[in-house]
Amino acid sequence: MYRHLFLLILSISILSCAKHKTTERPVKELTSYVNPLIGTKNMGHTFPGATAPFGMVQLSPETNLVLMYNNDGSYNKETYRYCSGYQYEDSTIFGFTHTHFSGTGHSDLGDILIMPTTGKLITEPGKISESGSGWYSYFSHNNEQASPGYYSVKLSSYNINARLTASERTGFHQYSFPHTDSAHIILDLTSNIYNYDGKNVWTFLRVENDTLVTGYRITSGWARTRTVYFAITFSQPIENYGILNLKKLPYNGFYRKFDEDHNFPERAGKEIRAYFDFSTMEDTLIMLKVALSPVSTNGAINNLKAEIPGWDFEKTYANTQSKWNKELSKIDVEMQDRNHMEAFYTALYHTMLSPIIYEDTDGSYRGLDQNIYTSDGFTNYTIFSLWDTYRALHPLLNLIEPSRNSDMMHSMMAHQNQSVHKALPVWSHYANENWCMVGYHSVSALADAIVNGTTDINPAEALKAAVSSSNVTYYDGIGDYVKMGYVPEDHSGSSVSKTLEYAYDDWCIAQIALAAGDSNTYNTYKKRSESYRNVYNKQSGYMQPKLSDGSWRSNFDPLDTHGQGFIEGNAWNYGLYVPHSIDTMITMMGGKNTFSAHLDKIFTTEIDDKYIEKNEDITRDGIIGNYVHGNEPGHHIPYLYNFTNDPHKTQERVRMIMETMYTNDIDGLCGNDDAGQMSAWYIFSSLGFYPVLPGSGEYALGSPLVKKATIYLENGKTFTVNTKNQSPENIYVKNITLNGTEHNSLTLSYKDIMKGGNIVFTMSKGQ
Amino acid sequence: MYRHLFLLILSISILSCAKHKTTERPVKELTSYVNPLIGTKNMGHTFPGATAPFGMVQLSPETNLVLMYNNDGSYNKETYRYCSGYQYEDSTIFGFTHTHFSGTGHSDLGDILIMPTTGKLITEPGKISESGSGWYSYFSHNNEQASPGYYSVKLSSYNINARLTASERTGFHQYSFPHTDSAHIILDLTSNIYNYDGKNVWTFLRVENDTLVTGYRITSGWARTRTVYFAITFSQPIENYGILNLKKLPYNGFYRKFDEDHNFPERAGKEIRAYFDFSTMEDTLIMLKVALSPVSTNGAINNLKAEIPGWDFEKTYANTQSKWNKELSKIDVEMQDRNHMEAFYTALYHTMLSPIIYEDTDGSYRGLDQNIYTSDGFTNYTIFSLWDTYRALHPLLNLIEPSRNSDMMHSMMAHQNQSVHKALPVWSHYANENWCMVGYHSVSALADAIVNGTTDINPAEALKAAVSSSNVTYYDGIGDYVKMGYVPEDHSGSSVSKTLEYAYDDWCIAQIALAAGDSNTYNTYKKRSESYRNVYNKQSGYMQPKLSDGSWRSNFDPLDTHGQGFIEGNAWNYGLYVPHSIDTMITMMGGKNTFSAHLDKIFTTEIDDKYIEKNEDITRDGIIGNYVHGNEPGHHIPYLYNFTNDPHKTQERVRMIMETMYTNDIDGLCGNDDAGQMSAWYIFSSLGFYPVLPGSGEYALGSPLVKKATIYLENGKTFTVNTKNQSPENIYVKNITLNGTEHNSLTLSYKDIMKGGNIVFTMSKGQ
Repeated sequence: MYRHLFLLILSISILSCAKHKTTERPVKELTSYVNPLIGTKNMGHTFPGATAPFGMVQLSPETNLVLMYNNDGSYNKETYRYCSGYQYEDSTIFGFTHTHFSGTGHSDLGDILIMPTTGKLITEPGKISESGSGWYSYFSHNNEQASPGYYSVKLSSYNINARLTASERTGFHQYSFPHTDSAHIILDLTSNIYNYDGKNVWTFLRVENDTLVTGYRITSGWARTRTVYFAITFSQPIENYGILNLKKLPYNGFYRKFDEDHNFPERAGKEIRAYFDFSTMEDTLIMLKVALSPVSTNGAINNLKAEIPGWDFEKTYANTQSKWNKELSKIDVEMQDRNHMEAFYTALYHTMLSPIIYEDTDGSYRGLDQNIYTSDGFTNYTIFSLWDTYRALHPLLNLIEPSRNSDMMHSMMAHQNQSVHKALPVWSHYANENWCMVGYHSVSALADAIVNGTTDINPAEALKAAVSSSNVTYYDGIGDYVKMGYVPEDHSGSSVSKTLEYAYDDWCIAQIALAAGDSNTYNTYKKRSESYRNVYNKQSGYMQPKLSDGSWRSNFDPLDTHGQGFIEGNAWNYGLYVPHSIDTMITMMGGKNTFSAHLDKIFTTEIDDKYIEKNEDITRDGIIGNYVHGNEPGHHIPYLYNFTNDPHKTQERVRMIMETMYTNDIDGLCGNDDAGQMSAWYIFSSLGFYPVLPGSGEYALGSPLVKKATIYLENGKTFTVNTKNQSPENIYVKNITLNGTEHNSLTLSYKDIMKGGNIVFTMSKGQ
Repeated sequence: MYRHLFLLILSISILSCAKHKTTERPVKELTSYVNPLIGTKNMGHTFPGATAPFGMVQLSPETNLVLMYNNDGSYNKETYRYCSGYQYEDSTIFGFTHTHFSGTGHSDLGDILIMPTTGKLITEPGKISESGSGWYSYFSHNNEQASPGYYSVKLSSYNINARLTASERTGFHQYSFPHTDSAHIILDLTSNIYNYDGKNVWTFLRVENDTLVTGYRITSGWARTRTVYFAITFSQPIENYGILNLKKLPYNGFYRKFDEDHNFPERAGKEIRAYFDFSTMEDTLIMLKVALSPVSTNGAINNLKAEIPGWDFEKTYANTQSKWNKELSKIDVEMQDRNHMEAFYTALYHTMLSPIIYEDTDGSYRGLDQNIYTSDGFTNYTIFSLWDTYRALHPLLNLIEPSRNSDMMHSMMAHQNQSVHKALPVWSHYANENWCMVGYHSVSALADAIVNGTTDINPAEALKAAVSSSNVTYYDGIGDYVKMGYVPEDHSGSSVSKTLEYAYDDWCIAQIALAAGDSNTYNTYKKRSESYRNVYNKQSGYMQPKLSDGSWRSNFDPLDTHGQGFIEGNAWNYGLYVPHSIDTMITMMGGKNTFSAHLDKIFTTEIDDKYIEKNEDITRDGIIGNYVHGNEPGHHIPYLYNFTNDPHKTQERVRMIMETMYTNDIDGLCGNDDAGQMSAWYIFSSLGFYPVLPGSGEYALGSPLVKKATIYLENGKTFTVNTKNQSPENIYVKNITLNGTEHNSLTLSYKDIMKGGNIVFTMSKGQ
């Protein structure tokens, strides 16, 4: 246990003496430990389909098609359940689409639906509740396989075996048809993971020749204006086809010169759907390659040619599998059993599904202003769910994928440059900003990269972008915050969350200013970072919503997560979010013992159902007392005991959370994976350390779950985590050595890791 | 008169002895002869606004905003009246938009409406029929001025003087406001020259800073998918603004985080409209520059900067005026009076309003497949109304603007390359094909350029494109035509028009094949060009609709223009469309005298009202007997007398048409100007010759209206048309000399003109 660490006379571990050295990173066959189906049941919101690491194409089945609004205009809660398009409990598949969020708490995407069918042509998808109402097929999990870069399923209604793989920008479909003269491939440009009247803005389709189809669609929704271009090649010639215009406009400029429904090679309209007919012999393989582009149909064609020139499905899969093994091998772990190995590598897999590459193979991409740019010296990425991912995902990528993470930072800088608000991304979404959640947390990811020296972005440039982002006065109470030192609840809801997150973000900006050598800006933001004090009510002992007149808002309930100044949290848990001044916060809140007791209460207070029912994204599964691991604001909380006199409780809580909130099961995630943040928490915690304060270059030490882990660093060095006496019961850390020397600290630095080396945790059953 | 020409012993004119020489083209102040208001009353469908020659921006007032469908769903005939957005009889202006067709028979465009107002902000345009119902203003023609590159009007409802000028891609607005603290500039992205629910697909607006606004809109309609990008700069900072979303979708991804209606700098949605507020002193000039781009908002910004860097309205106008003078000075004419001078130069002006430049200043443009291309070695153009313009407009441009015409040919070739049908344009419309009218007449314009040696397009490449275009079997009966030698009326309406136009087009393809040295293809198309024979009914003496079983369709009425196998014509007039085999046609139809008598009947038979009422684009004004000058299929008819024994009747008819169908008046056009075709007919006929057979390199001689004309050729040479004894009565040509030598022919060749030289017509009162 930690609290004794400082008192111990250290015995130097022989193991820890092993000098670190530059190592050729071995690539292991680790994909066998990954089960993409984990999290697909209930609220994990992951998808089981095929994708390359950080790939733009994430080709996965849709098990239901959801209308966002019920007939009476009310919100359909199923919209939320189907964020990733797949729910394990379903027994139907409506088709395979090429884009998915992994683990988000908001639905979107589901582009370019492909569905193979046979028999009488059906051109309506149908309804899950009405058997035989559409083209969908039944399937069984017995006939389903998912692995990194691979997904297969038997579509039993049609006796078609579907196999899918993908490169970064191209999905590869292989359908084994029965003998039939009526094989169909449906291409639905109208399908969305959630739909409503008007979500499809425009669709455009061209049958370029008998094996090539191109087009695009523009959708609205969470991304206000999103355009996805595509090119599809078929492995055998189309015999017959039809392009249907489902929502005809009053006027058709073509003067009815053509039979546009049948074998007419172009169509554009609000809602276009097509079918392509083939004849097949028994086990005929009809294959499709579907490339996407954010830029143009020509871009999609080029992506297709560049990535998958031939028709070798197995080779494409092997290539992608090899990419996954390379990525997963960056952390080589030994754990107590296969179950834990699978939980670990599936989590690691889930940290590599977003942000995604968002550019063509020639580097051109669509910017936030809808202009086309070329990434110069970086690869452009999108899907930055930053309120989630600044906490642990970006710090993890900064550790094991620093070059890629730097590309992501460049992508953020480009976003800022293209933003009419001159703001870094809040939630970057396919050349759109959807402003989801609170804070301007790009500055955290930037600070983490700059402080750790992993990006070539000029700190002065980063500072300029950060300062600009933190002064968008009309965004989420920032104007008030800058003037008054806090966000007044009567002006802007979730005001305490905002104030706390802004204060942390401002600390990050101060770190960037330090790196830029700008002491004026450093001082300004250092001061802004203390704003958390302004929402602390000494009387109640809680962070509380304050009004613009300086008074505390009445009717305060520290357990309620709604309307109490917090978002996805309450005063009990989110109120502890001062990661940059934890010691000061603890003093402010009554000192170490009081604070430790408060932490205890968080983990032990059984909260009333009424607080849970209000939250669509919290279930009892994700909650320990009043600690909600399913949401992000508490992710640092288990590590806060380190700052009290009870660091052993960090070790307890962390191990408990790992064992209960992450299980190797279909419903193994206790809440949304949140674009990899939940999984990144697990990876760090398994390794025995966690970035409580991204941007500091320091990790808080916990209790490793691994028996041994080797981190293969991009600089060619390795850093090893070793344990002694590791077991499910031996959760307490008795002793730590770093490179053979006793480590009398509860922190580990990024620099220490980067040097290469070895940390050894000696575990014990008792504190 | 011509028929005596061959018999005459020629006296050599001294005037015609003057040797041609290379001359520096003098530029005259000819814009003063141009009245852009000609044709704005009734059916001319021209617009009075400001534009540079062949400019993409054609900035002109909208005097009414028309809904295409009445409340009961029926077609609103006003749609047709407002093809160019302006009707002279109106006394209201709803705003100024940046794109217009000139003289077409179909409405479209009207992009990016700007309207200055004062006082209480009104955000609805209102209805012409309801006084005070919207932001529109009254105006009087007394306070209106139009000149090439310039338009001004007083908006009397607001006491604002509006002055407009334009460069190729940028409109320049100057508004003189009264003293007010509530000056507004309305920017309406929803406005269309005709509108219906769904025409606006998407609109997108960003207020980049307090003087720069960017955005785009996507519309459907005649062009299925048309995107126009823009950038607007204001001469003084915006004080306050609002962007309204008129058609909100059920879901707004922004979570209501912002007051999006007020001073929020970006918005996207189906229908976006904005206002910008200013304070003004008496006579404050608020100026706007509005640049368009087919590519991107960045493209528009670049166009704006490249074309009009400063705020000098007068200089911009002077530059554009100077461009017009240069263009107009290509033909320097002397005519009997100012009236005729104005008719002539206004017609010449009208031949330079389309096709329009369709690319950014850096050469990038949107292709037919919606991909972005860069024009390599040419300038890209759009708006090819080819069924109209192949007849005389392209031949005219090929004569006086051969380089520009060659660029247009390159644009057609690029269109073909980008076409999913691999077809040259039928009606090229802002990166769309709207397939208007019949034929594949690009091949005529190409043949004309290739035969006359004015394009560097490889004839073999042109031939490939032409052959491909003429074999799009699913287009307008081409499949049947190729197989059966005619279009069967029971398979495809307007079958006779189609067969005749295809036959001529095939003759053009044969000419291209000749140039390419491809005798096989030549023979194939020479044969196809004889297909006109297959729709000639020897029994009736008419071209007649034939059925697929080879029989003639019953109930044939040679005067009816509807349902009788013809479009915009009837058997009497359109039935004479065999320009490539006129002699054979005349023989087939009974010989010269019979044919001449038929022509007489065309011009003298008074036709029943019932035939006129059916046609929205024919009025009594445009008709002489059964000759309809307001439509194109008869444009060669007056010249057909040349091929009989009565060429003097060509001279009579041509002069009569020029004097009655083209007057120097607001309603001086007898029908739609048809993208310049009507005006091009007038220019040629005024000069005394006309391209009866484009692609032949030959013109038919008529009766010049000019006293003298000097054509300044691009090769530096000049060709002069001189007349002797020219007068309104002396309409017959007694004698012709070419370069001083008697000219015993009814034709003049392109080559003769290009050599430079002098043709002298000696006119007389009697035949």
